[in-house]
Formats: sequence, C-alpha cells, structure tokens
Amino acid sequence: MSATDELVANNARYSEGFEGPLPLPPAKKVAVVACMDARLNVYGALGLQEGEAHVIRNAGGVVSEDVIRSLTISQRLLGTEEIVLIHHTDCGMLTFTDDEFKLSIQQDTGVKPTWAAEAFADPQEDVRQSIARIRNSPFVPKKDSVRGFVFDVATGRIDEVV
Amino acid sequence: MSATDELVANNARYSEGFEGPLPLPPAKKVAVVACMDARLNVYGALGLQEGEAHVIRNAGGVVSEDVIRSLTISQRLLGTEEIVLIHHTDCGMLTFTDDEFKLSIQQDTGVKPTWAAEAFADPQEDVRQSIARIRNSPFVPKKDSVRGFVFDVATGRIDEVV
Repeated sequence: MSATDELVANNARYSEGFEGPLPLPPAKKVAVVACMDARLNVYGALGLQEGEAHVIRNAGGVVSEDVIRSLTISQRLLGTEEIVLIHHTDCGMLTFTDDEFKLSIQQDTGVKPTWAAEAFADPQEDVRQSIARIRNSPFVPKKDSVRGFVFDVATGRIDEVV
Repeated sequence: MSATDELVANNARYSEGFEGPLPLPPAKKVAVVACMDARLNVYGALGLQEGEAHVIRNAGGVVSEDVIRSLTISQRLLGTEEIVLIHHTDCGMLTFTDDEFKLSIQQDTGVKPTWAAEAFADPQEDVRQSIARIRNSPFVPKKDSVRGFVFDVATGRIDEVV
C-alpha cells in the first residue's frame, strides 16, 4: 500500500463525520502564508477550523509572485483582510544556496531553472523580506495587518518578528 | 481582538502539548499540492500528522512555477517520492476569467499584473493539466506516483481524477 493509498483510506474515515458545505469566503478573513514543512501543521498550530482561513504554502513560506497572485485573489475576490506569515526554525531553505542548488540541477538534467530557489540564511530576516514584498505589491489592497512569525519546531510556539 | 491575535492565542494552547522536534524529511515521503480554500483542511481530510508530508498550497492548487520550485526542493533535497494533487468543488477559481480579473486590477490600480491569474472552468480538467505540467518538468525527478483528486466541499470526500 503506497503512502497515497493510505491518505485516501484516511479520507474515507474523515468524510464519515463531515458536515458541509461551508461558505466559500474565509470566516476569519485571514490568509496564512507558511512554509510547506511537514512539521508545521498550520491547522493545529493556529487552532484553525475548516472554513476559517486561506492557507498558502510553498518551500520556505517566501512571498513569491505566485503568493502575490494567491493573496490578490484572496483579498479582492474572497474578502480576506489580514495576512499571517509563518517561517520556522530548522528550515530546509537554510541548508543550501541558490547557486549551488541550481548548478546541481543543471549538472543532473542539463537545464538550469529560470526561477530563483529562494534559499535564505535567517528565518526572521526572510519574514521581514516577505512583509516588504507584500507592502511593495500594487495588487494586494489590504495591508493594515501583515504580521510575521517564526514557528519553533522544537516547542511548537510561534514568535512574532518585529 | 483581531483574528491574528486569536490565532496567536490558539498557538499558546497548541504548544503546551507539543513534543518536538521531529526529523526534517517528511516521514511518508509525500508532497501534497492543494488549493488554499479555507474549507479544505489538508491535515484533517487526509489524516496527516505532523512530520509526515510537505503541504504546498496556492489559489486553485494549480501547478505554477512556484509549485515546481517547491516540488523540486521537496524531492531533490528532502526525499519525497509521491505527489498528491487536490482541487475541489465550488472553487473560487471557477467564478472569474483571467481577462476580466486582470482588467479589474488594471482599472483599480493602473497596473496590469504580468502573471496569469490561473482561473479554470473545470476542476477535473485542471487536475489533468496540473499532472501534465509536472510530467513536463525536467526538474522534478520522481514521477511514478503523481495522482490527482477533487475534494467535495459538501461531503468531505476526495475522488481520484482518471
């Protein structure tokens, strides 16, 4: 049985107790942008329930163009007003540099990615960079509450970056 | 109290029962790519526990360049081997077209985004498109298990797209 098959079997149990549908717009009017890291369960760590918040995640939790796209849709079409950014300790993005990663891909495949890998050296500093990218975007209209945090994978706590 | 403050307060309770740190590589060697929709609790719906899978999410769950970046890092640096794609019924991406959305942004801000909004008309068809984009990428090495599903927001069930 593959891992994917296990997840499908888990879903059958989940759906037995499921009550839907909930409304499309997020009830708490929040969009969370977080790293894809397996140890960061955004629903558990923030006490989020189904229907409450958009959850946007990628490698690093960096504010890429795709995150700006998602936040633009979240705010302009679905009414969210607050943004919560979450990076974390012991992140995989701290373990390499863009140059060495892209060179390794080029050596393996013959093709060098046109995209930045977005490695970073300091989660707090990259949270500040992510906030700066949102503040600099003309497409995201609501910027009164853009707050960034670092999740500690040892303690489960989020600490705000100031 | 803002919604963000509520989530911070919820985190204090979560961390009281938290035991970490878990290892960095995902235990189930799975990366999930899902829509940001608030009603799709990926941890609940797939029975995922902390430490088991990367979770990548954006507006639509579409395979953007940023998702390829995240999957490349997930597989090449952190050992994942299976990919699970999840779109869903009643998706916000079904409610507009790229042209009209980008025109509305241009009219509001004076600037037209350089990015595609990635609206789509049929979740099943867009799951197939997402699988095709992964299969077409030279950067994602492991393609033996790339499976796509549509989550039903009324029943909580995922149905595989074939």
